[in-house]
Amino acid sequence: MSETWLDEIKWNADGLVPAIAQDAASGRVLMLAWMNRESLALTVQEGRAIYWSRSRGKLWRKGEESGNVQRLRDLRLDCDNDVVLLSVEQVGGIACHTGRESCFYKQYRDGGWTAVEAVLKDPAALYGKQP
Amino acid sequence: MSETWLDEIKWNADGLVPAIAQDAASGRVLMLAWMNRESLALTVQEGRAIYWSRSRGKLWRKGEESGNVQRLRDLRLDCDNDVVLLSVEQVGGIACHTGRESCFYKQYRDGGWTAVEAVLKDPAALYGKQP
Repeated sequence: MSETWLDEIKWNADGLVPAIAQDAASGRVLMLAWMNRESLALTVQEGRAIYWSRSRGKLWRKGEESGNVQRLRDLRLDCDNDVVLLSVEQVGGIACHTGRESCFYKQYRDGGWTAVEAVLKDPAALYGKQP
Repeated sequence: MSETWLDEIKWNADGLVPAIAQDAASGRVLMLAWMNRESLALTVQEGRAIYWSRSRGKLWRKGEESGNVQRLRDLRLDCDNDVVLLSVEQVGGIACHTGRESCFYKQYRDGGWTAVEAVLKDPAALYGKQP
């Protein structure tokens, strides 16, 4: 199978590119994570967002624990070939591990960061932990 | 002046964070660039997007050549404190140096990347070059 489309991407020194996930319905920017070659290939193959977890050093099938899978609707590459943008259907309506819709819930206000969005689901429940 | 809000950000080894610019009106993700501490402070101070150009190694006042300034409407930080999201008014309606609205104009289709968005303005005109 030709992998020219993967070769065209300018991976950074660690073999990664930033991947932005945007909600296909609401237009909200949900999160930014990182992808390596394998995770991007799998994202297309499986039709769902699969990132590379830099902290865990392994593939991260978004939603594997929480169930909040991101179904791929559209995939874009930028002019410099070093950033990808995923348009996704966010299952469960929650992308953030804090239980919020988007990871970008802290707003700059009066010289500080203020959490301005509601927690939709308790993270403990999200990750199936018993109280 | 207190700079606690800047200290809270987890800058990478190069002292940078990815900065996503989203059009406040259309919701389109326009581009991703990078910011260092100084550029983010100036972005807030001047109310316009000021990035750090990694290729040129200097501050990049978006629109300084093209006139396509990005006026800051909202600034967000993500849950991990390592990505910022700018909601902007894109002056001129063009963010990309190719003359397109968004830098994310290449779509994945049938195993390749296809440019799917129109050039709104000739880049030569955008940067004031004579033909």
